[in-house]
Amino acid sequence: MGGGPVRVDFLQLKRVSEAQRLFLEACPQGPLGVETVPLHEAAGRVAALGVKAPHDLPAFHRSTVDGYAVRAADTFGASEGLPVYLRIVEDIPMGRAPTKPLGPGECAVIATGGMLPENADAVVMVEHTELLAEGEVGVLHPAAPWTNVMRRGEDCAAGAELVAAGTGLRPQELGMLAHAGVTEVPVARRPTVAIVGTGDELVPAHQEPGPGQIRESNSYTLYALVAAAGGEPVILGTAADDEQAIREKIEEGLRHDVLLLSGGSSIGMRDLTARLFAELGPPGIIVHGVSLKPAKPTILAAAHDTPAVGLPGNPVSAQVSFFLFVQPLLRQLLGLSPFPEYTSAIRARMAKNYGSAIGRVDVLRVALYRRDGELWAEPVQDKSGLISTLTRADGMVIVEENRECIRAGDWVDVLPV
Amino acid sequence: MGGGPVRVDFLQLKRVSEAQRLFLEACPQGPLGVETVPLHEAAGRVAALGVKAPHDLPAFHRSTVDGYAVRAADTFGASEGLPVYLRIVEDIPMGRAPTKPLGPGECAVIATGGMLPENADAVVMVEHTELLAEGEVGVLHPAAPWTNVMRRGEDCAAGAELVAAGTGLRPQELGMLAHAGVTEVPVARRPTVAIVGTGDELVPAHQEPGPGQIRESNSYTLYALVAAAGGEPVILGTAADDEQAIREKIEEGLRHDVLLLSGGSSIGMRDLTARLFAELGPPGIIVHGVSLKPAKPTILAAAHDTPAVGLPGNPVSAQVSFFLFVQPLLRQLLGLSPFPEYTSAIRARMAKNYGSAIGRVDVLRVALYRRDGELWAEPVQDKSGLISTLTRADGMVIVEENRECIRAGDWVDVLPV
Repeated sequence: MGGGPVRVDFLQLKRVSEAQRLFLEACPQGPLGVETVPLHEAAGRVAALGVKAPHDLPAFHRSTVDGYAVRAADTFGASEGLPVYLRIVEDIPMGRAPTKPLGPGECAVIATGGMLPENADAVVMVEHTELLAEGEVGVLHPAAPWTNVMRRGEDCAAGAELVAAGTGLRPQELGMLAHAGVTEVPVARRPTVAIVGTGDELVPAHQEPGPGQIRESNSYTLYALVAAAGGEPVILGTAADDEQAIREKIEEGLRHDVLLLSGGSSIGMRDLTARLFAELGPPGIIVHGVSLKPAKPTILAAAHDTPAVGLPGNPVSAQVSFFLFVQPLLRQLLGLSPFPEYTSAIRARMAKNYGSAIGRVDVLRVALYRRDGELWAEPVQDKSGLISTLTRADGMVIVEENRECIRAGDWVDVLPV
Repeated sequence: MGGGPVRVDFLQLKRVSEAQRLFLEACPQGPLGVETVPLHEAAGRVAALGVKAPHDLPAFHRSTVDGYAVRAADTFGASEGLPVYLRIVEDIPMGRAPTKPLGPGECAVIATGGMLPENADAVVMVEHTELLAEGEVGVLHPAAPWTNVMRRGEDCAAGAELVAAGTGLRPQELGMLAHAGVTEVPVARRPTVAIVGTGDELVPAHQEPGPGQIRESNSYTLYALVAAAGGEPVILGTAADDEQAIREKIEEGLRHDVLLLSGGSSIGMRDLTARLFAELGPPGIIVHGVSLKPAKPTILAAAHDTPAVGLPGNPVSAQVSFFLFVQPLLRQLLGLSPFPEYTSAIRARMAKNYGSAIGRVDVLRVALYRRDGELWAEPVQDKSGLISTLTRADGMVIVEENRECIRAGDWVDVLPV
């Protein structure tokens, strides 16, 4: 933990958007490194470098239908009443090159995916032809040039980018890369995320708690959230509410790319966490307290280039804080923009009135149910610290800063959680 | 491949909903087996059995605030003008049991998460008190019973289900299970899904294609789609368009829980695949041809209890067919209902008119962009077989059977792909 200026703003509440901006500006822009993975393991990763097509895709003109490869100009004027007659010079086998170019008045039998012969620039569907004498076909409709043809390079031209740096790789990007013969993909290294739970009352999940003790559970939730967001979670276990014990965990955690410290719902513990985070730096504490319900006492900090987040110990607050601050951070560290351009949501109608405060973001847990063919969102009765408010919820509704209330019946976007 | 009746309906187009129903009814209901995984690896899996709470959660009354544990009745009538004075008998340390029950007129200092002493049934927030002489506190507001208390068993009562069988495990379910000390979870075995590509023109992705050849790419896309849908993909490689070669791959594939055979865009190949699928059974071919654009020539079949799907070779069609038939199948084999109760989508306005046909489902690929603060969905120009129509798309719009057109400006639900 370096020296330098230490900045502590104890519970100077920041707006969510400002807290996000200040925090993300202080954090590194990814990717943090490049690693190469086999293509079939690349789904869900982020391309760290652009990948270019080594040659035209496809490498030859391909037919998109079963029919006859033709010189388009030969078919002009064809009609059902006056077909154009072409001589079949070849039956092009799949996966093989045609053996001869097409001369005027000639055509070749071709199947979907077959390679067009030289001089051919269109394919007439078999349904638009009539087979006449042996070796001759009547074309019933004219074909414009390049009808029913996937042209050489149409999927991707040689040297063009198959995927750009910073692209999230979906199943179809894998298909495109396979098509180009790219079987090893340079992807962003996953940020390692150290997870620490703090609290005198905590025992590990596999232990029997004594009177007044509970099992540490946030680490498991955070483990899964980090993995789903593209990070590599590392559980460092729990620390008692003891300055030295927590300081040691913080030091251990800062060897990773990100440190998440959860716990400290009591005022004393929050102060202790803040005091220890204030020792980090520069920049140290960036935000302490957000105008947000729940998760107000979130602490956003960094030790040099290593982001450190103090998540509230309350499981509901911890999850809200994760979505608003840690998920954008992980996207940034992967080389994505911190906020996606659009998010998918479930549209539902609010079942009850909900009042918020101007300037504060409220994040509501809701359960969804159908009534009269419509989907309704019922706020889950929320008691501080109950994990069941999360397991009973189907999603979250974000009540933006400039919104004072949602009325029963209003349509809302429910983000699945 | 068993004997029994063989049923072949060559391209008797079925409606999508009927095809789904017939196919899923013929396929097993999951889970196919139960396996136990460590809790931190359970996210994204499906609980195969219900898991019950071994004891009340929490196991004791916990405070949700920093303040004073009280007997609620003692505080009735308290006001800022006339506080109720209580004697502090203990400072309850976190993670430890209180040492004595509360007598009338007594209270105990307690932190968030602390264990209430016997006889205490509420906690007064520190903000609602004033500290007086040593050992005495003035309560300024009355506290109703159970104010600021998470009651024993309130998160989950002993013996109640923490998660029900068939629950998809999210990060918060992991937290709940950890809370209860369940560190090993019985989950549905992932269905193994054999993936075969067929076609004379195909070479493996790591090979240099010759003239007229292309690299097999659908397997990579399907691998990622299967994994994302909760299955365990197994790539069996490619078979040439040869009856014996494909028959061998089918036999190998049927040793897995599901067989996906992709390829055969030409009429001849489609017929060959159908002929070989017709040998399966019972029930053999269930659906051959769906009133769907693209992916009309999808074949849905089963050999006894093993579902087999003939996916079109065209990558766009294969992906559409996967979403409509294979994804629901995998959900069913995992013990989930085949179709989720609701799906999340991106709301956008169609940028262009689109005409469909009554009775047919159309699946449109669209790219999203912002204009004047609204999100618009632009259909991606679609040429049969171009993978780039998938990589350029941000999502799909499903045009239902009873819909004839979408007009420019209409709001649509875009499903992310």
